[in-house]
Amino acid sequence: MKQRPLKSLFLYPRSVVFIGVPRKSGPGTLNPVDNLRNWGYEGQVSIVHPHVKEIAGIPVLQSVSELNVETDLAIVSTPRETVPGIIRECGQRSIRAVIVTNQGFAESDLRGKELQREMLLEARKFGIRLLGPNTLGVYNAFHRFNSSFMPLVRQESPIGVVCQSGVFFVGAIQLLGGMGIGIDVGNASDVNIVDTLEWLGEDERIRVIALHAEEINDGSRFLEVAAKVGRRIPIIALKTGRSQEGAKAATSHSGSLAADDRIISAVFHRTGLVRVQETQDQGDLVRGFIRLPAMKGPRVAVVTLTGAGGIILLDAMERYGLQPARFSPSTCDGVQSLSPDWMPIANPMDIWPAVMKNGMRRAYGRALRDVLADPNVDGVICFALGLGEAEQQHLGAEEVIQQMSEEFDKPVVVWVYGSRTEETINTLERHGRALTVPSLERGIRILAAMMRYSNWKSLRTQ
Amino acid sequence: MKQRPLKSLFLYPRSVVFIGVPRKSGPGTLNPVDNLRNWGYEGQVSIVHPHVKEIAGIPVLQSVSELNVETDLAIVSTPRETVPGIIRECGQRSIRAVIVTNQGFAESDLRGKELQREMLLEARKFGIRLLGPNTLGVYNAFHRFNSSFMPLVRQESPIGVVCQSGVFFVGAIQLLGGMGIGIDVGNASDVNIVDTLEWLGEDERIRVIALHAEEINDGSRFLEVAAKVGRRIPIIALKTGRSQEGAKAATSHSGSLAADDRIISAVFHRTGLVRVQETQDQGDLVRGFIRLPAMKGPRVAVVTLTGAGGIILLDAMERYGLQPARFSPSTCDGVQSLSPDWMPIANPMDIWPAVMKNGMRRAYGRALRDVLADPNVDGVICFALGLGEAEQQHLGAEEVIQQMSEEFDKPVVVWVYGSRTEETINTLERHGRALTVPSLERGIRILAAMMRYSNWKSLRTQ
Repeated sequence: MKQRPLKSLFLYPRSVVFIGVPRKSGPGTLNPVDNLRNWGYEGQVSIVHPHVKEIAGIPVLQSVSELNVETDLAIVSTPRETVPGIIRECGQRSIRAVIVTNQGFAESDLRGKELQREMLLEARKFGIRLLGPNTLGVYNAFHRFNSSFMPLVRQESPIGVVCQSGVFFVGAIQLLGGMGIGIDVGNASDVNIVDTLEWLGEDERIRVIALHAEEINDGSRFLEVAAKVGRRIPIIALKTGRSQEGAKAATSHSGSLAADDRIISAVFHRTGLVRVQETQDQGDLVRGFIRLPAMKGPRVAVVTLTGAGGIILLDAMERYGLQPARFSPSTCDGVQSLSPDWMPIANPMDIWPAVMKNGMRRAYGRALRDVLADPNVDGVICFALGLGEAEQQHLGAEEVIQQMSEEFDKPVVVWVYGSRTEETINTLERHGRALTVPSLERGIRILAAMMRYSNWKSLRTQ
Repeated sequence: MKQRPLKSLFLYPRSVVFIGVPRKSGPGTLNPVDNLRNWGYEGQVSIVHPHVKEIAGIPVLQSVSELNVETDLAIVSTPRETVPGIIRECGQRSIRAVIVTNQGFAESDLRGKELQREMLLEARKFGIRLLGPNTLGVYNAFHRFNSSFMPLVRQESPIGVVCQSGVFFVGAIQLLGGMGIGIDVGNASDVNIVDTLEWLGEDERIRVIALHAEEINDGSRFLEVAAKVGRRIPIIALKTGRSQEGAKAATSHSGSLAADDRIISAVFHRTGLVRVQETQDQGDLVRGFIRLPAMKGPRVAVVTLTGAGGIILLDAMERYGLQPARFSPSTCDGVQSLSPDWMPIANPMDIWPAVMKNGMRRAYGRALRDVLADPNVDGVICFALGLGEAEQQHLGAEEVIQQMSEEFDKPVVVWVYGSRTEETINTLERHGRALTVPSLERGIRILAAMMRYSNWKSLRTQ
């Protein structure tokens, strides 16, 4: 019989066994079996517990040896001293993939380090691959499977996550806007960031990967895999433990040795990883890469309803390596003809006087079409008002922005402001390809990072 | 008869005249008279328009000379060529405060520059003080008055705004979380940033000022006023036009000359202004200063549910000039005794294993009380889960955080994450003094800026 590949055992298991779960189920018990049931997992679920007959309505086995179905994946969460023995039992039942959830190993004390080593030795004896310890394990919304004891929302999204902490599972919505498939490598005693990056890079459901790493081991393979995956889809990388104190803490958190941040930077640069400085940028870029067409160069057109906003954007462009597009000779003509004589039209293109003379739709439509059609423009950032239903009929620009963002293959980023923005933002997010951003500078950072990724990619594929 | 002070004429006018408003009223007409009516402005409103008898139900005067009530403030929005003449008419009717809303002056073309000069000469002849041109004017939620043609939300908040652009009026909610009193100085042809900073600095309803400046003229008076105001309340300053392109654009936007950014930096430093690099930080700091007690030093305690989150915070602290507190000897004892033996307790204080053993409330309460009571701690940043009603009973920490943030006079900042955070965030924002933040790094930037302000203030008052 042909063996299923390792990736499938972890990400798409057909049968799982939980070894050590709470006796009770329901809210507050953090019972992972509840989570699988709530998600509608369709595979086989077995439970091993030495002292109970039934948990969450499922008959319980006394030990791993009683398992009488072939089992793709074991999820172990028992007192740490018992774990090496349980790994052995899993090996004896031909289980090839094991997740060890618990804390208390290399990240804690000397005994924990010893136990992690023992556990690994047992795994190697039987050819078991081991994810963890100190991990929430695997999350796969498409397969309706997750190994975590935390209650998580299931959301089929093209966002892949490779991380060293459960915070990216529990906080996926806050940090990344969601997660389709996630792997928490925890202490990365065996299965590591490189393995899992490769798995997600091959998964066609995934269109962008958010990477959180406290350490990068296996440097040359990392280089190779990240470059290979990066040519297909962007990897947005948050490397933590960069400060002195942070690096020290990383050692005790995941038991890892954080390398000098300058080395990491050099490595990242060669792989085309999109590196971010803080968590918020990671989420912003995930959204940007999923929604926007490629940003092929540094030249930004600004269509603004406020002169001050244009200036804020110029400051941000200089800071993040973008530049205001120098328009082709005729690009300003349309909006100039709609503006009062005294109004100079340039980039940033301030259309407010033209709006006052001609109405929002006419002025905005002209402006957006002309800048997007200009071959000297790589991307657009623009402004929209959100003022509530009555005013929106007169001052809304959603339709125009939606239409133009579909018509041209360039990224359009919108900042929505006003007394009632929610409806306008929702409309823009539902239709068209424009991306709404919570601040102007965040829009610029997204375009700048997308440009860097396009640059790297075009160099690699020449 | 004693004259009302200039500040009152602009911010608390008892009677206003609009010279030039749209003939129509209702949604989409941008008629400022509608806005005053919607807000319930209680002062006298007159309208001057040469061709219409009635606007928005108010009988209209043919010219300023027909005004038969004493008028605190005129709001002028007529074709630019007519403005100098109208200023003269206002002077002849003893009006001392005028707002000129229109664009088309020094920010546009040569003729515009000329007209701005003429307008100013007329004003000086009659002792008129002039706000604008190119401005939305004045917004005062407490007085139910605003001079703007844009539909704005009225919200009595302790946030004062001094700006050079209407975007801070229309986008006050997005940029700053609200606005109680705002003054847009526009081209600042006469009334300028320094004047208005002084007015808001004296207004007891205002507890924090957000300043947006494209230029700082009147340098030595600015130093003096900003330092005086800064001793009472924090001024959060966003200086734009810092880049080369941005500075050029500032000249054409408000007709101003932007000084070298290094000079601005030096000046800001001496005044104790809290300078921010981008719009988002300005809004964050406004929220922080309003809600939190003072951050008196750089020493931060972290109470975390995730090791990785603690490391992200350590990185951010180093970057922004804060440091992890070195706890007093006994501070870890409580949580250590609640944790498994193998779990080392330090700062960041990872309480997750203690939560698993003892429940959220017991572990979290112990941790927060102990770190807040530690004299080596200046502020706390912590984590809370938002998981929806059922799980929240077991894993919610809102009550504990609320209680401790009230009990101790130190800032407590919370990042909420999970599958359903909205309710948790609302609960925390409604009660207690803790501040919720959308990302960990933003929490650190808030504490860092608050510390710098405290430092400056304590030096000035010694």
